[in-house]
Amino acid sequence: MNKRLVTNYIGYILLVEGIFMIPSLAIAWIYQETRAAAAFLITIGITLLGGTMMALLKTHDRTFYAREGFITVALSWIVMSLAGSLPFFFSGAIPSYIDCLFETISGFTTTGASILNDVEILPKSVAYWRSFTHWLGGMGVLVFMMAIVPMGRGNGGSMYILRAESPGPAVGKLVPRMKDTARLLYIMYVVLTVVEMILLLCGGMSLFEAITISYGTAGTGGFALTNASIGAYNSYYIQTVIAVFMLLFGVNFNVYYMLLIRDFRHAFRNTELRVYLSIVFLSTAAITVNTLNIFGNARDALHHSFFAVSSIITTTGYCTADFNLWPEFSRCLLVLLMFLGACAGSTGGGIKFARLLILVKSIRIEIRRMIQPRNVKVMKIDGKTVEDETVRGVYVYITAYLILLALSILVVALDNFSFETTFTSVVSCLNNIGPGLGMVGPTGNFSAFSVLSKLVLAADMLLGRLELFPMLLLFAPAIWRRNR
Amino acid sequence: MNKRLVTNYIGYILLVEGIFMIPSLAIAWIYQETRAAAAFLITIGITLLGGTMMALLKTHDRTFYAREGFITVALSWIVMSLAGSLPFFFSGAIPSYIDCLFETISGFTTTGASILNDVEILPKSVAYWRSFTHWLGGMGVLVFMMAIVPMGRGNGGSMYILRAESPGPAVGKLVPRMKDTARLLYIMYVVLTVVEMILLLCGGMSLFEAITISYGTAGTGGFALTNASIGAYNSYYIQTVIAVFMLLFGVNFNVYYMLLIRDFRHAFRNTELRVYLSIVFLSTAAITVNTLNIFGNARDALHHSFFAVSSIITTTGYCTADFNLWPEFSRCLLVLLMFLGACAGSTGGGIKFARLLILVKSIRIEIRRMIQPRNVKVMKIDGKTVEDETVRGVYVYITAYLILLALSILVVALDNFSFETTFTSVVSCLNNIGPGLGMVGPTGNFSAFSVLSKLVLAADMLLGRLELFPMLLLFAPAIWRRNR
Repeated sequence: MNKRLVTNYIGYILLVEGIFMIPSLAIAWIYQETRAAAAFLITIGITLLGGTMMALLKTHDRTFYAREGFITVALSWIVMSLAGSLPFFFSGAIPSYIDCLFETISGFTTTGASILNDVEILPKSVAYWRSFTHWLGGMGVLVFMMAIVPMGRGNGGSMYILRAESPGPAVGKLVPRMKDTARLLYIMYVVLTVVEMILLLCGGMSLFEAITISYGTAGTGGFALTNASIGAYNSYYIQTVIAVFMLLFGVNFNVYYMLLIRDFRHAFRNTELRVYLSIVFLSTAAITVNTLNIFGNARDALHHSFFAVSSIITTTGYCTADFNLWPEFSRCLLVLLMFLGACAGSTGGGIKFARLLILVKSIRIEIRRMIQPRNVKVMKIDGKTVEDETVRGVYVYITAYLILLALSILVVALDNFSFETTFTSVVSCLNNIGPGLGMVGPTGNFSAFSVLSKLVLAADMLLGRLELFPMLLLFAPAIWRRNR
Repeated sequence: MNKRLVTNYIGYILLVEGIFMIPSLAIAWIYQETRAAAAFLITIGITLLGGTMMALLKTHDRTFYAREGFITVALSWIVMSLAGSLPFFFSGAIPSYIDCLFETISGFTTTGASILNDVEILPKSVAYWRSFTHWLGGMGVLVFMMAIVPMGRGNGGSMYILRAESPGPAVGKLVPRMKDTARLLYIMYVVLTVVEMILLLCGGMSLFEAITISYGTAGTGGFALTNASIGAYNSYYIQTVIAVFMLLFGVNFNVYYMLLIRDFRHAFRNTELRVYLSIVFLSTAAITVNTLNIFGNARDALHHSFFAVSSIITTTGYCTADFNLWPEFSRCLLVLLMFLGACAGSTGGGIKFARLLILVKSIRIEIRRMIQPRNVKVMKIDGKTVEDETVRGVYVYITAYLILLALSILVVALDNFSFETTFTSVVSCLNNIGPGLGMVGPTGNFSAFSVLSKLVLAADMLLGRLELFPMLLLFAPAIWRRNR
């Protein structure tokens, strides 16, 4: 382990985070939120000072392998969450520090699960920071760092970091240089976010609302400014804009790059995209029919079903209606969609459609192998061969995912809430959704859980956002040994 | 596909089934259950006649490959269930035919899920048949057939059948000849069953009770003669005998063979066995502590916890207490144990510990590969290398299992019962357990489900018992093509 280089990078992350808190400080100053202003000022001081010290640590050895990449990502996210939770604590907005940490990790991991009984009493500056954590966590703060900080010669280190922080079974570079890939990703991300803000402003939202709600959409987070979530904006236009943008942020950003370079054939022939949109269509149709009795008319049923499907499948978690009260079929379908998650290379969580595709194809191949053992075919997606290593990676991922799911359920069950609350709270956090069923449904929150459960659920969010292995590797003794 | 040979084998199965109904006919005659006697007489006539016709069909081509093995097993189990349900229907014991089929499939697959609101009013002969289906399904009727019917030269066909019918990721032959392996398995099975019967008789059970309850234990089934299940026998001795024998029938029968040939080293060094017993020990301890408040004293808590863990982990489903009313931690732990199931090569259902071992080891290997890509190790269990093909088989199995679980939940959710009822009814049937939580808890049953749900749950039982692929292959068009 090259501990000094890892410390350097974590230092850069703290610097980036401190700088990104300045807008919140400005908002606190504008709205004369004295205590919040002090909280941001202190936190910015701590992060900039700590970050500078860590970034200036001398490193002669610049070697950086896969394991340094994993550890940098895992530790960055932990350090970033610890620092990011300070404004909540110092401002007094959230009294318990564990709750501050839960809320911050929920923000950065774009989960959107909240321990707040009333989000509407938050100071504006704190509410802004809470939503901004979604935006920063969505595309990844290390990816941002790579786009601006000189990372030395060679792509090695950056590639390992991008791989560890970006979602999906196989991360591709858009362009040969990693720095340019990271920049391109952030440019597309900013543009899409700004377009949504403008469309929301056109619908009559205030600038503050448009910005924060767009942050939550872009990162597929789900923190809202109101207790009724998006249900508070009683406008079909606004709700539909958000629903569509949630879907857009759930698409693999490679598709947007293909569109940018006018490679329409590859953009629209993307199997993952097609499966994703088909599942959205079918699920919306099924839930619309299933909830017809509740809404009384097809238009409302379709509207709210589409919003719920889009929100859950992209792992955002915004709500316009309380799907906890819908018939069991709709509830179960939404829970299943929680597992699926969005496309690889998007800002969404969950297992991802790319993995689902590989899994389904591997069953088909196995069945063919059973019938005709001598006629074995290789797996292909979009005309490209899927390497055995990638398939194995997906399998190991799913296995580790299920084991963590099971263990987390056991711990959370100690709180003795209902089966649906216990099960869906873990599913929701591990897949970075936000709401679940029962007590953690759209109108509920996570405040009643014990400290132990909150810590486990927060760990699940980090595990889910970083796709398990960076966090799991922290516990492998071999990773802490010196380089050989 | 060699359709004629497959038809032959299904014919043999029907003959075996018909002959095995004769004891039920005798019981009906002894207890003067006229209508039941007529029902068994008619069914025996149908099965023997149909079976003879199918068995006598001329087959010149004796080639038998893997796909013939899968199809023979899948179709045999369907035909056997259709015929086995007739006594329930003709005797009027269960009015609806779908219910008869559900109960029979639940019996043969050793699930033990029932649609009966009152099992105590069943005629004795029908109750005997109901329990006997557990015993026959536990070790497998095709394995029985292989032990007695001359299957032609070569081990090929028998091996494919054993592999398709026996549970576990890799089936080993005990002795070189398949016929002898099948005989040995059944001899051990009969001996263990008889020992249990004798011990239960010593506890004061009637002969009829001792026989039927032993059938349910041996097959890890769970059908009881009383609505209170094993709770009706208010004897610590009887309940403990059953709990211990459930555990014994959940052990890989290879272990008993090792004991028989006095190879104690291999018998006790079996990793799967050790993990299995450790999990039983840990789960019992955890649930004992968690239920102390409910039972008021440690002895009762330990007794009922051990029974519940043994019953669920072996996928039997007998109950001495209503674990549906236990704290959420115990309930969730039991649901997780439902997924695990017993050891490979036992009569239990579920995913099996052998698979779990392979999965956990593969995660460890993957993590090591991430840290030191150049230093890749092969997987070993009990000193033997686990082939990549076996690992891949386990992964594909788990994937298909999860997809079927998800789809079944969606269908059953249409009945609009609670989340825990919907989820655990499917988990319980797919893993061949019997009880679940909520409406299908130890004091509940499956009668309230719609016809569609009952059919899906019955299909899940067959899928679970035959470990998915024989049933799935029925739907692969390629399997129905002529041999090339």
